[in-house]
Amino acid sequence: MNKGRLEAFSDGVIAIIITIMVLEMKVPHGDTIESIKPLLPVFLSYILSFIYIGIYWNNHHHMLQAAHTVNGAILWANLHLLFWLSLVPFASGWLGENHFTAWPVALYGIVLFMNGFAYSILASLLIRHHGKDSFLARAFGKDWKGRISVIIYAIAIGTAWLWSWVSFGLYVVVALMWLVPDRRIESKLPVGGLTEE
Amino acid sequence: MNKGRLEAFSDGVIAIIITIMVLEMKVPHGDTIESIKPLLPVFLSYILSFIYIGIYWNNHHHMLQAAHTVNGAILWANLHLLFWLSLVPFASGWLGENHFTAWPVALYGIVLFMNGFAYSILASLLIRHHGKDSFLARAFGKDWKGRISVIIYAIAIGTAWLWSWVSFGLYVVVALMWLVPDRRIESKLPVGGLTEE
Amino acid sequence: MNKGRLEAFSDGVIAIIITIMVLEMKVPHGDTIESIKPLLPVFLSYILSFIYIGIYWNNHHHMLQAAHTVNGAILWANLHLLFWLSLVPFASGWLGENHFTAWPVALYGIVLFMNGFAYSILASLLIRHHGKDSFLARAFGKDWKGRISVIIYAIAIGTAWLWSWVSFGLYVVVALMWLVPDRRIESKLPVGGLTEE
Amino acid sequence: MNKGRLEAFSDGVIAIIITIMVLEMKVPHGDTIESIKPLLPVFLSYILSFIYIGIYWNNHHHMLQAAHTVNGAILWANLHLLFWLSLVPFASGWLGENHFTAWPVALYGIVLFMNGFAYSILASLLIRHHGKDSFLARAFGKDWKGRISVIIYAIAIGTAWLWSWVSFGLYVVVALMWLVPDRRIESKLPVGGLTEE
Repeated sequence: MNKGRLEAFSDGVIAIIITIMVLEMKVPHGDTIESIKPLLPVFLSYILSFIYIGIYWNNHHHMLQAAHTVNGAILWANLHLLFWLSLVPFASGWLGENHFTAWPVALYGIVLFMNGFAYSILASLLIRHHGKDSFLARAFGKDWKGRISVIIYAIAIGTAWLWSWVSFGLYVVVALMWLVPDRRIESKLPVGGLTEE
Repeated sequence: MNKGRLEAFSDGVIAIIITIMVLEMKVPHGDTIESIKPLLPVFLSYILSFIYIGIYWNNHHHMLQAAHTVNGAILWANLHLLFWLSLVPFASGWLGENHFTAWPVALYGIVLFMNGFAYSILASLLIRHHGKDSFLARAFGKDWKGRISVIIYAIAIGTAWLWSWVSFGLYVVVALMWLVPDRRIESKLPVGGLTEE
Repeated sequence: MNKGRLEAFSDGVIAIIITIMVLEMKVPHGDTIESIKPLLPVFLSYILSFIYIGIYWNNHHHMLQAAHTVNGAILWANLHLLFWLSLVPFASGWLGENHFTAWPVALYGIVLFMNGFAYSILASLLIRHHGKDSFLARAFGKDWKGRISVIIYAIAIGTAWLWSWVSFGLYVVVALMWLVPDRRIESKLPVGGLTEE
Repeated sequence: MNKGRLEAFSDGVIAIIITIMVLEMKVPHGDTIESIKPLLPVFLSYILSFIYIGIYWNNHHHMLQAAHTVNGAILWANLHLLFWLSLVPFASGWLGENHFTAWPVALYGIVLFMNGFAYSILASLLIRHHGKDSFLARAFGKDWKGRISVIIYAIAIGTAWLWSWVSFGLYVVVALMWLVPDRRIESKLPVGGLTEE
C-alpha cells in the first residue's frame, strides 16, 4: 500500500495539533502588560509542547522517508500515535493553567510516555514489514534514545508529586536530547527518500 | 477528472474533524485528579469517535486507491459524506457531556447511520463510474459489512430509550468489526494503488 | 509558477473553513430533544454554508485543473477569495444565532456577494494569464451563471429588511443553481486536467 | 532530504493559522448593526494579519521553489518560523480587542519582528545549504526588503507608547511593501520551480 496518503494525513493532523494548542492562550480583556502576565506559564508550556510536536513530526518524517510501503496494521499504529499526540494540547493547557503543579505535570508525563510508546509500536511494525535486514531496521537500530526517553518520562511521572519542577526539567532534557534530528536515518538515506520499488 | 485533489481535500477535512473533537475536552480549572474526573465520559466518547473517524479515513483511503477517476456526482457524494462526518464531533461532545443518556446516544447513532448511508452512496457512484466488471466493483462485492453496520445502528437507535448502554455497546461492536482494514480491497490491489490509464 | 502548492494551500484553507463552521453548533448542556431544538436554525444555516463552501471548492478545483501555471497576481487574487470565504463561518453563525432576521440575512448576502466578486477577479486573472484563445477562456465563456448569482445576491441583500425569508430563499436558489458542477470545464477537459507544458 | 513534505506541512500550518484567526471574531448575540459594530477593530486587525500571513505564505512558497533539498537544521528553522507565525492570531486578537492601544500594538510589532527574524534565519540556512553561488543565493541577494522591514518593526515597537496609531500605520506600510510578490525569485525561476537533481 502506498505511503503517500499516510504521510499527507499525518501531516494534516500534526499541523492542526501544533496550531490549535495556541488557542489555549486566550486573549485577555485588559490592555496592560499585567493582563498578559498570567499567560506566561501557558506560554512556557506552549513552547515545550510545540517543540515536542515538532520532534514527532521530524522523526515521523524521517522514519516514513525510509519506508517503502505500509499495511493495514501500520495505518492503525499511526492513528494510535496520532491519538496520543492529539492529547498533548489538552495536557499542555492543563499544565499552563495550573502553574506546573503535581497532577498536571504527571498527566503531561503520562501523555508523553504514551506517545513514546505509540511511536515505538509504529516503528516496530514498520521494521517487521520491511524485514530485519532492511535499511529501516539498520537505521533504527536498538533505539536507545527512544528507550531512555520513556524511562525518563516514567521517572518524571513519579517525581511529579514530590518536586514537580524537577519533572518539568526532565521533560525539557528529553526535548533537548531529541532536538537533534534523527541522524541515524538522515545520514544514510539517499536524497529524496526511498520509494516503492 | 483527477482523483488527487479529492483525496487531498478529504484528508484535510477528516484530519481537522478528528483533531477538533479533542477541543470538546475543556481544560478544567482545578489541578487535582477530581477536577478531571468529570471528563472521563467525554474522553470515552472521544476514543470511540476517534476510532470511527479513523475507520472512515482508512476505508475511504482504500476505496479511492482502487478508483481511477472521479466525476462531478462523486465529488458531491464525497462532500455529502464529509458533511455527516463533520457532525461526529458535535454528537460525540453531546454524548460525553450527558453521560450516555437516551437522546444523545440516539443522536450519535443517527449520525453514524447517516455516515454509513453516505458512504454507501459514494461507493455506489464510484462503482457505477468504473463499471460492474471493474476491480472496484469486484473488491467491494455485496458490502455485507456495510449493510450489517447500518442495521445495527438502526437497532441501537431504537434501544437508546430503553437501555442506552446497550446502544453504546453496539456502537463499540460495529467499530471493532471495522477495525480490521478493508482486506477486500487491500489484498487484491497492486502496490501503490490504481492510477489513471 | 507551479500551480500545485496554490491548490494544496487553497484545499487546506477551504477544508478548515468548512469544518470549523460546525463549531458554531455549541454542545448544549441538557440531554433532551428540547435542549437541541434551539440549534435548528444554526443547523439550517450550517447546511446552506457547507453547500456554498462545497460549491466554491468544486468550482475552484475545476478552474485550476484547466490552468497551466499561475503568477503573483493570481496568488493574491486567490488569497482574496480565501479571505471572503473565511468570513462565511462568522456570517453563518450570526445568521443561525438570530433566526434569519434582517441584518444577519443581509450580512450573509454581502459575504456571498463578495465571494462571487472575488471569484470572478480570480477567473479574469487566470484567463488573462492564459490568453483569450486558451482552453480556460473558452470553457469559462461569458460566465452567465456567475453574473446572475451576484445580481440575485444584490437583490437578496435589498429584500433582507422587508422579507428576510425571501432573501434566504434566494440564497438557496443560487446554491441549487450551482450544485451542478461546472460542466463547461469538465466536459471539455482531458482526464487528469491540464499540466504545465 | 526531500523538500516536499516540508512544504506540505508548512502549508497545513499556515492554512490553519490564517483560518483560526477568524475565530477571534465571536458571533454577537444581538441581531442589529450596533451589535457587530464593536467587532470593527477586530475585523481591521484580522484583515492586516490575514495579509501578513498571506505574505509569509507567498514568500515561503517562492523561497522553497528555489530550493533543491533541505536538511535537519532547515526543518527546525522552518518550525521556528511557524512558531512565531502561530502567535499572530493571539497578537491580532489582543490588538482588535483593545482598539489599538499601546501594549497590544507593541506586542503585535514584537511578533512581526520575530517572524521577520525567523524568516531570515531560514533563508540564511537555505542559502548556506545550497552554496553562495546557487540560484537561491543570487535571487535572495542582500535582502534589503527584509532588513528594512525589521528596522521599521523596531521603530514601531518604540512608538507604540507614544503614538500607537503611527505604529499601526507602519505595520500597514510594511505590508504594502511586501504585497508585491518576491520578483527576485519569480522572475528568474524556471516554470515549475527547481527540483532535486
